[in-house]
This record gives sequence, structure tokens and C-alpha cells, in this order.
Amino acid sequence: MVSVDFNADVGESFGIYSLGRDEELLAYVSSANVACGFHAGDPATMRRTVRAALERGVAVGAHPGLPDLVGFGRRSMDLTPGEAYDLTVYQIGALWAFVKAEGGNLRHVKPHGALYNMAATDFRLAEAIARAVYDVDPRLILFALSGSELARAGERMGLRVAHEVFADRTYQSDGTLTPRRSAGALIEDPVLASRQVLRMIREGKVRSVDGTEVPIRADTVCLHGDSPRAAEFAREIRRELELAGVSVRPPGG
Amino acid sequence: MVSVDFNADVGESFGIYSLGRDEELLAYVSSANVACGFHAGDPATMRRTVRAALERGVAVGAHPGLPDLVGFGRRSMDLTPGEAYDLTVYQIGALWAFVKAEGGNLRHVKPHGALYNMAATDFRLAEAIARAVYDVDPRLILFALSGSELARAGERMGLRVAHEVFADRTYQSDGTLTPRRSAGALIEDPVLASRQVLRMIREGKVRSVDGTEVPIRADTVCLHGDSPRAAEFAREIRRELELAGVSVRPPGG
Amino acid sequence: MVSVDFNADVGESFGIYSLGRDEELLAYVSSANVACGFHAGDPATMRRTVRAALERGVAVGAHPGLPDLVGFGRRSMDLTPGEAYDLTVYQIGALWAFVKAEGGNLRHVKPHGALYNMAATDFRLAEAIARAVYDVDPRLILFALSGSELARAGERMGLRVAHEVFADRTYQSDGTLTPRRSAGALIEDPVLASRQVLRMIREGKVRSVDGTEVPIRADTVCLHGDSPRAAEFAREIRRELELAGVSVRPPGG
Amino acid sequence: MVSVDFNADVGESFGIYSLGRDEELLAYVSSANVACGFHAGDPATMRRTVRAALERGVAVGAHPGLPDLVGFGRRSMDLTPGEAYDLTVYQIGALWAFVKAEGGNLRHVKPHGALYNMAATDFRLAEAIARAVYDVDPRLILFALSGSELARAGERMGLRVAHEVFADRTYQSDGTLTPRRSAGALIEDPVLASRQVLRMIREGKVRSVDGTEVPIRADTVCLHGDSPRAAEFAREIRRELELAGVSVRPPGG
Repeated sequence: MVSVDFNADVGESFGIYSLGRDEELLAYVSSANVACGFHAGDPATMRRTVRAALERGVAVGAHPGLPDLVGFGRRSMDLTPGEAYDLTVYQIGALWAFVKAEGGNLRHVKPHGALYNMAATDFRLAEAIARAVYDVDPRLILFALSGSELARAGERMGLRVAHEVFADRTYQSDGTLTPRRSAGALIEDPVLASRQVLRMIREGKVRSVDGTEVPIRADTVCLHGDSPRAAEFAREIRRELELAGVSVRPPGG
Repeated sequence: MVSVDFNADVGESFGIYSLGRDEELLAYVSSANVACGFHAGDPATMRRTVRAALERGVAVGAHPGLPDLVGFGRRSMDLTPGEAYDLTVYQIGALWAFVKAEGGNLRHVKPHGALYNMAATDFRLAEAIARAVYDVDPRLILFALSGSELARAGERMGLRVAHEVFADRTYQSDGTLTPRRSAGALIEDPVLASRQVLRMIREGKVRSVDGTEVPIRADTVCLHGDSPRAAEFAREIRRELELAGVSVRPPGG
Repeated sequence: MVSVDFNADVGESFGIYSLGRDEELLAYVSSANVACGFHAGDPATMRRTVRAALERGVAVGAHPGLPDLVGFGRRSMDLTPGEAYDLTVYQIGALWAFVKAEGGNLRHVKPHGALYNMAATDFRLAEAIARAVYDVDPRLILFALSGSELARAGERMGLRVAHEVFADRTYQSDGTLTPRRSAGALIEDPVLASRQVLRMIREGKVRSVDGTEVPIRADTVCLHGDSPRAAEFAREIRRELELAGVSVRPPGG
Repeated sequence: MVSVDFNADVGESFGIYSLGRDEELLAYVSSANVACGFHAGDPATMRRTVRAALERGVAVGAHPGLPDLVGFGRRSMDLTPGEAYDLTVYQIGALWAFVKAEGGNLRHVKPHGALYNMAATDFRLAEAIARAVYDVDPRLILFALSGSELARAGERMGLRVAHEVFADRTYQSDGTLTPRRSAGALIEDPVLASRQVLRMIREGKVRSVDGTEVPIRADTVCLHGDSPRAAEFAREIRRELELAGVSVRPPGG
């Protein structure tokens, strides 16, 4: 049976500050990327989030980010590969401990924000991150933008890589995402979003904004949690996929 | 053969800032307490320090502290037990990942500074810390002030506890350390310091500043790294103990 | 004409994290205490908040807190008076610059959370904070718990002090607030809250929870912004006071 | 009489961590750039440093940096102009308060590290920083790399700008510094360094590494404090310049 993973970023609250609709999203995803305290998250939030994910049978992954809380890890920084390695190891470990304490297993790692974007195109950075994941635990699955340098680096390192696609974003003819600020960047209709995902899964293709067919591999679908309709969108896409015979479950699961 | 552990705090540099004489100290201790990024230390320093300790065959432990870099974790904070639990789990995990990446095993946990002091007298805090250690890995050895609430909490939890004594500090008749600012708080002569340690190991006693004999258990001896003579002092005490037939090795080793 | 000040804590968002209902509250208060980046707030939030307050003619004050973002400055810390002095100077300056850049004048200083509470009872800490305010600008008005050590320290220093009372909290017979977790700590009815404030202003008295009359000075009334009904509560109290002939305006204004 | 300013970065310690040879350097410079707590420095260090500079009659300036303590503000970050404006305002204010509390006047602003470098070539960022300085106090002097976008932005804004040159660095034919890692980047002989500075002051020229004459304006000379010989180098250059009839004093002084 054909399957795909649904993942979402959770655990992005910090101290008194609440962010996201984790409880709702966890009902629809199969993998949860938990913030690790650098771009978001704090020890108490991590514990609560890991517990909530495990209770729902959602696979837990680390979501390491840049050390930039005020910028939510979205501002590129001029990191050396060594610095990227070190902050990835640190954050994976911090989250691992909560998963261990809660009786679960850490399953995957997905870099956050600017770290994810930089690693998608900078092979040396990608390699450092892949190596960090491998050195902490070679069984961890690396989530990376489909077709990116990070996916390539992970595969070279011998890691299992989950190629990530986006349900609610359109693609350009070179396989990259249409920038958020461009017209037509977002897909707001869950039925259209589901169709895009289904084609990616079944045919390994996506139709770009200018109409060309682009090859793409879809192991895991990223769902955004920062809109009020996030959970509803997730639920509808999941239902559409299940109606089409695609089961939603974690990669390697 | 009688043995005792020597431990020292290392990895307390941060970014561009260098602190301590780790290289020298690692030559004389059997256990290294590595700062985990809250009161001191950063991911790069953690990696380098773990590597240096493992290369010298020194047992590596986590040294979690309060989230207070500017105060070096030395200022008491009004933490709930839950907060203490969470920040201990987080920091153990962060360090564990570097030890794992470097091919070693994490061996122990010793709280730092104000966290150590608060846990010595506050049983609820002590229990939370002991539980955090246990939940991450019940094989970890908890380093705690000899006879303290933390030692007691660790034992109740089922952890192996290394009771810690100080070579360069005098004791009061209730078994607590003479406060640093009091006259006679420090023992600066390594021969006298060695004798105090030897009695603790062999007879389970220490003579307090007012002359009474106080029962004490000495599994591990803390050596301070923040004085220029730290390494020399460590070397001399180690030599004295070895001459007296006491071997220096990690607890549980 | 009799007047009183209404103050509220604002500018407590941080980066992507939004907190409080500043826009609504600014419509009803005469003084705004703006977080300065230690317990909450960041440079962008400070600029926006200062601008919003000045646009509404609300007097702007600095709201310095402990360096504890994850604990929102609510956890007591063992600060020396020197440390309290330094962090108060720093935060007043940071906020002053935004007020200056926006063309306004900084009017007051009110310590936040645990710093406020510690300074209410610890005279040395209170003195250090009062001195910090004085040294930066002796024209600044110090907001302090009515009758507290901080109020006393400010007056000794020669500062104008605004004695602060709470509309929505009950008092004990020694003049302190009934702890939040006790029954009867909160006054949820704005009419009752207004009557308590009116008596404080006109008679200099408050009736404690056990029925005794306690002398109290009320220069400024603290309104909390962290409940959904905060703005409504503020509006109702303000209306009640104005109906009773009390005008709401900043101290010294 | 011809004069030039000597400036150095000071106040870069943090908490328990000591960095630099401030005491020695302050004896030879006329302007001190004091770190403001983002890339280095903390409230206590700022107070001590401001006091030490004022006691020696050294002009005090703010040295705002990126919010990156672990990277010492040396890693470029993808800041918006608005973010650069806000963090500059914040840091100037924080330092201003210490200068005010110590009875002095804040004289200048010099961005640090990556912020300085980015502002040298990115006009929008430069403009935001210049505007921040102007908005806080239009009398402040902006220190900027000689001939840079930041110098240009400051002048357009109506600020006094001190064009900064380096005594111990060589220049390329386009007027930029030879990158540190290139051969011949550093001038280690204080006599040669003094000659380079003298020509810059008297003739407005510097000979580049490939022998061409490059026009340059030298209002202030940056002296580095991070080498063991820093103070000696500063003293020797100062003596050479004074022997040549150039007095060392702050710009606008």
C-alpha cells in the first residue's frame, strides 16, 4: 500500500509565550518536528510537546535551528560547517533526552527555517548537518527539501532521507518553491493541495507555475501550523489522501 | 585496592571567551564535569572538551547549571522542581550527544554552582534533579555533596551516587563546608589537603574547624580549576594519594 | 481636582511571540510601563510600543526586569545590589533611546515581576534601584508598591515616587497584597474594584480581607493586561472614577 | 595643529569572562568604543569600562553589535534595515545611560564586527544605522570605514562622520582592506604603521599592496586590543605621530 508521511513543526512556544496549535495538528500528522530551544522552544515546552506527540503515536523528531530566538531562526547567518555541526549535535541531544525520559524513540531530524534553507543549497553546510545527525545516531531519518543538497548529503552519508514536499506551496520549473511573496505561491484549497501531493506520490511529478512537469520525490509532506486554518487544512488533505488509498504514516515506519 | 575519583569542572569557555586550564587539569583527574551551555560552555566548546577528555581516558559527565550565563550559574534562582527537572534533562541530553558523536559513553551528572548548592539542602529540588538523571539513563552516576539531600534523593531513586568531598576546603561540625569568605575556609597546602582526603577515604571522617570529628563519605574529590595553581595542586594531591596506596579512578569504573 | 494615574505593563511581546492587548489597554491608561528586553520585549517591540503610547498621549516608562526571558522575570534571583543597579541603568537607557527617537520624554520607571517584589521588601536592593533611576535622570518618577521599601528608598534618594495600588487585588491587614493563590485574592467586579480605589484616593485607606482599615497611599493604579477582559475592566474602572470626579492622568503631569 | 583620533574597542568582557587589555589601551587612545551587551559586554562591564574611560579623559562611544554573543558579533546575519535600526537605538541607549550615570557625555557610535562590515557596503543597512544614531542624538559622531557606504549615509543624514583607517592593516587598490587571511594583510612594525597613518593624515593617500596610490580620509585610527602587544603597539604609534607633530585627540574635540 502506498503511504506518505505528514509532518509539522510543533513545540515552538517559549516560556510564557504560546505559539501554534500543536494539540490540533498532532491529530493529523504522523511526524512532529520539535523545536529544541535555539530558535524556539524551551525545556518545559519540549517535555510537554514530546509527551503529547508520543501519546498520540506521532513520531518525534528534532527540529534544530539557528541560535536566534528573536528572529525565530529565520534570518540567515554566516555559519561555518563546524558551527552547523555543533549546534545540530547539541539540539538533537537535548531533544533526545526528553524523548528518552518519556519512554519513546527519537526518529528523525529536520533543520528549521534559515538553517533548512541554507542547507538546501550549500553542500558543505548540508554535509556538516548530515554528519551531525549520523554521528549522534545513524538510524535517525533526515528530513530534507526534496532534491536538495541536504538530501544528497544525507544519502551520501548513508542516512535514510525523507524527501520533503509542500502541500500548500507551488513549485517553479527548476523544482524550487515559488517564493512566498510572489503571486500564486500558496495553494489555499485543500482539494488542489491534495491533488498536487497525490501526483507527487504516484507519478513523482509536480506541475510548476509555468506549466512544465518537474520530477519530485515525496516521502513526507510539510504542513504549516501557523495559520488559523492549519489543522482543518491538515485534516482535509489527510482525508483526501486516505480516500485515494494513500495511508499516512512516518517514514521507515 | 582502595580508590577514589578526582573530578574537575571543565569546558567552561564560551565563544571567544576562554576560561580554565582544561588541558592541564585533564592530566590529573579521572572524571570531567563538562558545562552544557546554560551557565557556561557552548556547542563548539562542548565538542572540543569531550574529545579532549575521552582522548585522555577521563570519564565524561554532564555539568548542568542554571540558565544564567552572565552570573555563571552562581546566583540562586527560585526554580520549581519541574523547572529543575526540565533543565537537567535538556543539558544532559545536549552533552550526551557530543559524547555519543565522539564515540564515548556519558558516565555521570554533577549539577553546577547554585543548582548544586540548592539541591544539597532542598529535597524537592534534589528529587527532581535525581529523577531527571534517572529518566534519561538510570546507569548515570549522580555526583552530589557528601551527605546532602541530593545524595539522599539519588539513592532513593535507585541511582548510583558518588559522594563528593573537597580537598581544598575545611568543614564545619555539621558536615557543611566552611563558607569561602570565612577565615580558614581554604586549605592551600597540598600535603594537608591530601591528608584530609586520605582520612576521609580510609576512616570516613573529617576533622572540622572546631576540632570535632565528623563522619563523611568520600567517593569523589572535587578539584577546582579556577586558580593558576590548580593543575599543580591536583598533581600533588594525586601523587600523595598514590604514594599512600590509593588509586585514582572514576566511580563505578 | 483629584486625580490618579492608571498604569499597565505593555510591550511584552518578543520576536514572533505576541503577548498582551496593548492597543486596547493604551486607550484607558495614563502611564505605560514598557518592557526593556530582559524579561520580555525586544528592540522592535519597544519601538512599536513606545510609538503607540506616545500617539495616544500615554506617559512612557521603563519596566526593567530580571535577565530571565524563559521565566518572564518572575523567578526571584539572588542579585547583589550592584547587579540590580547595573541592570536597571542598562534597561532604562535602552528604553530611553526609543522614547528619544520617537520624540517623547521618558517619564517613569517601574521594576517588573520578581525585581519589583524583591525591591518591595529588601532595602539594599531597593536603594540600588532607586539610585540607578536617580543617576540616569533624577526627574524620572519611580513607581513602587505603596508603602514599600522601594518607595521609601526612592523618597530618600530625592526621587518623586508614585505609590502603586492594585484595583483588582485585595489587601491584608499588614498592607500587603493577598497572595494570588489564596481565596479572595482577586476582585473581579469592576464596580467593587473602583470603590476600593476611590477610598484609597479620597481617604487613604483600604479595608483588608479581615476587615481592618489599613492606611495606604494611591498615586497610581496598576491594571493587568494578561486577562481577556483586561481592557474592559480598565474602561469600566476608569469610567467609575471619572463619574466620581477623579481624573485619570500621569503622576507629576 | 594637525590631529587625529585613536580609537579602540573596549568593554568586551562578559560576566566571569575577561577579554582584552582595556586598562592598558585606555592610556593610549582618545576614543573608546564600548560593547553594549549584544556581541559582548554586560551591564557591570559597561559601567566599569565607562568609568575607566572617563577617568582617563577618553571619549566614550557606543559599539553596537549583532545579537550573537557566541559568535562575538562576527557572523553576518540577514538583518532588515528596520532590525538594524532597532538594535542600534537599543544599544546606544543602554550605553548612554551608563555614561550619564557616570557624569559624562556619549560622544560617538561605531558599529561592531559584522554589523560594521555589512554597513560598509550595504547602503540601506548603512542608512538605517545612521538614522538610528541621528534619531537618538544628532550630535553623536558616527565612526565608519573611510569612504564606506556607512560614512556616506552618515553624511547624508547630517551627522558628523569620523572616517576610520587602520594602522596595522594594508589596503588594496580599491581602497578596501586586504583580507586578514591574505599574505601581507598585517603591518606588524609600528614604525611602518605610523608612516602609513601619517601619509593618510597629511596627504590623504595610502599606498596599496600593489603599489598604487589610493585616496583615503583618516579622522580616526583603529587600534586592535586583542593581541598581547596591542598596548605597546598603540604607545609606539602614538609616540611616532606626536614626534611628527600630530596630536591625538577625539574627533570634534
